[in-house]
Amino acid sequence: MRRLPLTVLAASLILAVGNASAATQTTIPAAAVKAAEQLRDKAMNDNTSYQIVESLTTEVGPRLAGSPADQRGREWAIAKFKALGFDKVYTEQVSYPLWERRSEHAEIVAPFPQPLALIALGYSSGTPKGGLTAEVVRFDSLDALNKADPASVKGKIVYVDARMERHKDGQDYAIGSAIRVGGPVIASKMGAAAFLLRSAGTDAHSRTPHTGVTGFKDPKEAIPAAALSNPDADQLTRVLAFGKPVSIKLDLDCGITGTYTGANVIGEFTGKKHPEQIVAIGGHLDSWDPGTGAIDDGAGVAIAMAAAKLIGDMPQRPDRTIRVIAFANEEMGLWGGKAYAEKHGADVAKFQLGTESDFGARKVWRMSASVKPEARGAIEQMAQVLAPIGVAYDAKMAGGGGSDLSQMHAKGMAALSLTQDGTDYFDFHHTANDTLDKIDPKELAQNVAVYAAFSYMAAQANGDFGSAAGAFANDAAED
Amino acid sequence: MRRLPLTVLAASLILAVGNASAATQTTIPAAAVKAAEQLRDKAMNDNTSYQIVESLTTEVGPRLAGSPADQRGREWAIAKFKALGFDKVYTEQVSYPLWERRSEHAEIVAPFPQPLALIALGYSSGTPKGGLTAEVVRFDSLDALNKADPASVKGKIVYVDARMERHKDGQDYAIGSAIRVGGPVIASKMGAAAFLLRSAGTDAHSRTPHTGVTGFKDPKEAIPAAALSNPDADQLTRVLAFGKPVSIKLDLDCGITGTYTGANVIGEFTGKKHPEQIVAIGGHLDSWDPGTGAIDDGAGVAIAMAAAKLIGDMPQRPDRTIRVIAFANEEMGLWGGKAYAEKHGADVAKFQLGTESDFGARKVWRMSASVKPEARGAIEQMAQVLAPIGVAYDAKMAGGGGSDLSQMHAKGMAALSLTQDGTDYFDFHHTANDTLDKIDPKELAQNVAVYAAFSYMAAQANGDFGSAAGAFANDAAED
Repeated sequence: MRRLPLTVLAASLILAVGNASAATQTTIPAAAVKAAEQLRDKAMNDNTSYQIVESLTTEVGPRLAGSPADQRGREWAIAKFKALGFDKVYTEQVSYPLWERRSEHAEIVAPFPQPLALIALGYSSGTPKGGLTAEVVRFDSLDALNKADPASVKGKIVYVDARMERHKDGQDYAIGSAIRVGGPVIASKMGAAAFLLRSAGTDAHSRTPHTGVTGFKDPKEAIPAAALSNPDADQLTRVLAFGKPVSIKLDLDCGITGTYTGANVIGEFTGKKHPEQIVAIGGHLDSWDPGTGAIDDGAGVAIAMAAAKLIGDMPQRPDRTIRVIAFANEEMGLWGGKAYAEKHGADVAKFQLGTESDFGARKVWRMSASVKPEARGAIEQMAQVLAPIGVAYDAKMAGGGGSDLSQMHAKGMAALSLTQDGTDYFDFHHTANDTLDKIDPKELAQNVAVYAAFSYMAAQANGDFGSAAGAFANDAAED
Repeated sequence: MRRLPLTVLAASLILAVGNASAATQTTIPAAAVKAAEQLRDKAMNDNTSYQIVESLTTEVGPRLAGSPADQRGREWAIAKFKALGFDKVYTEQVSYPLWERRSEHAEIVAPFPQPLALIALGYSSGTPKGGLTAEVVRFDSLDALNKADPASVKGKIVYVDARMERHKDGQDYAIGSAIRVGGPVIASKMGAAAFLLRSAGTDAHSRTPHTGVTGFKDPKEAIPAAALSNPDADQLTRVLAFGKPVSIKLDLDCGITGTYTGANVIGEFTGKKHPEQIVAIGGHLDSWDPGTGAIDDGAGVAIAMAAAKLIGDMPQRPDRTIRVIAFANEEMGLWGGKAYAEKHGADVAKFQLGTESDFGARKVWRMSASVKPEARGAIEQMAQVLAPIGVAYDAKMAGGGGSDLSQMHAKGMAALSLTQDGTDYFDFHHTANDTLDKIDPKELAQNVAVYAAFSYMAAQANGDFGSAAGAFANDAAED
């Protein structure tokens, strides 16, 4: 049985008690609805978002947090915000451990010598100079690893071999990411020499392994940890099936080298009536390094910038401020999002509504919201504007606010979730194949239409969506 | 206009003059046709071929000619022939230049620093230690490079950027392979510092570049030469479109280090009536190194071994010998095929009929033949046995004998072409993605059915197919 998320229960509860009087209802004025429809239609035929993501991925390329390209990414974002005519452009510092990838190699040493394609995971330690050779012990799930006798893995290379299948909502990433984040920590505690997993990815036939962060919190607990591509995992599993001891040599040159201070880069169009009230949208500026971070998350940055730009191009500024945040170092632990929430969490009530785009560049097909009951009508007004471009409103589901902005949502910010079609997202996610050619300009434009329309309506609403310190605590706990 | 190949004209001419008397016609006895039908049907449900290619690609893995794995590949082939019960198993030496790949890296230095995914080509020289940095000059075809002023490319990195599209018969490989083989030689003659091409491959979205051989005949003329993956070529082309000078740093550690002596590995079931007369089938045992050589050409070796094995399992040996040749070093210049033809060319008349499988593991959809006019009827008998499993006989097209066996065909061996569906072959060809998961066991089994049925009929034929010194000179010249 699939577990019913608490979020659904919480949302239902909110609906059930949502019989507040008409006087306190938040609504979107008819003129704002009409303007949002125009923004939507204009966005569908506008390729600004594609030009932005093309510019970022071409002129900066991969943007591993803390790398020289990370700095170039910030410079690019500042310049792009200014070129697009944002009223205010500024940065807010974000500090985090600096993890560097230098090189990585692996080979089966015995019984059948051959190289393996793999990639080190974030916060992995390096192997000793010259590499590490050890026997492999395979597990088919995190559960199986958890139940193993530590004596059976001590000094060995733990290999967790679980497959992800494609789903529109990407649900199997729960399996893959749990193994990638938690597996290395468990293996380390059990005394394993290193950790390998079958990539958390759905591309069954591609030799491009998927990197991603581990759960190592302290460099002292880190062991070498890496992901095999799916065909390499198939190969290792086949070799293990011969029943002979299998040894692998790992040579990873990577690790934490210090602390780095980067920044969230922020641009905004200032509201004319309530400049202090914020509609917050964004994406993250950093990317993993094997690809150019096109779908993760150049697209998110481009969608938010282009949506705000459409609003900024209107004859008048909106009532409230439209703020676009290009977050720092989402990939290695939501560092930008956490820093933002720490700095602005006390002012959460000023955040009208927010959400971040960080699930690729396919069409948005679903909207859900975490808002106060009195704002459900306004959300339904948004849903009516978005329905003609393929967005279905799920009133029973919470809105999480996306990756970094989940941290503001946890503080009490009213939030949406705008879910893209993720069927092929985990084919490319965190791999060398996350490149511009994976983005369809028309699908990207549909995202901009969604973001421009909802942002404008939120900015023009009569009333708020319920942001307050501690609001949405029940569903935030689930996100 | 597409040029009408001479082969078609030659075949038509042969048909036109093919009114020889019934007495001299080569025919397949009815009992042999019936037995071939049974072999065909048995093969369609036999997975020996898949087990063979699984064993080769798992237990040996990549098999670059001259590498330690090349030697292991020969040992594997000898052991496998013996395990399958072949009557005779032996090797014949093949010598060739030993080219080694050690490492390869590339990056755009200016104007937008970022890494590029590329792979060195066979016989490429290495760059000077520490790498080579030079400006890039782009050409959209080999023609354009040929017409360039040598002064404009001297000291620069020549980049030829032409796309291949998918076709069932793989026809665009003519474009890609011409650039890969000929481009480096032209660039070297013009004084270029290095050569890059957009991969000769049809996978538009994969960061797995396609290696392959160049036309360098003498190490002294070799320059560093490498292929960019399609998305990397897209990226470089986008960067060049900014109109600023683009410089790339190449660091290739590879080159010719001496001469190597390997071997063709041969297994046969000895004919009981005419043991000296040979039906020759095969594949090549070497592979490029980034993948495990599953479709190129573990499949070919497996198809030929499994087809012969089915014949060897019959209650009696066939009239003529069924010989399976696992050729050495096809990839870097048909070295195994040339050595074979040099050794056995004088005896070409003893080769009843032959063909090699070296175009993947999809279903065979087309058969063509280069045989004497009096043997056309026998070929039509074969076609009737193969039609029910999807093979269409093209009577107007020559048969080339496949890659290595083209060399025996050029000496005068009667030959077939059995063409697989190559629609996705050049997605994986010569890349890291040439792995076992690309093979469908059922499609592979259809190939075995084709090879077993035709081989048996050729072995039992009343009469020959026209092999003779100098026969088929017109169409061999075209292959």
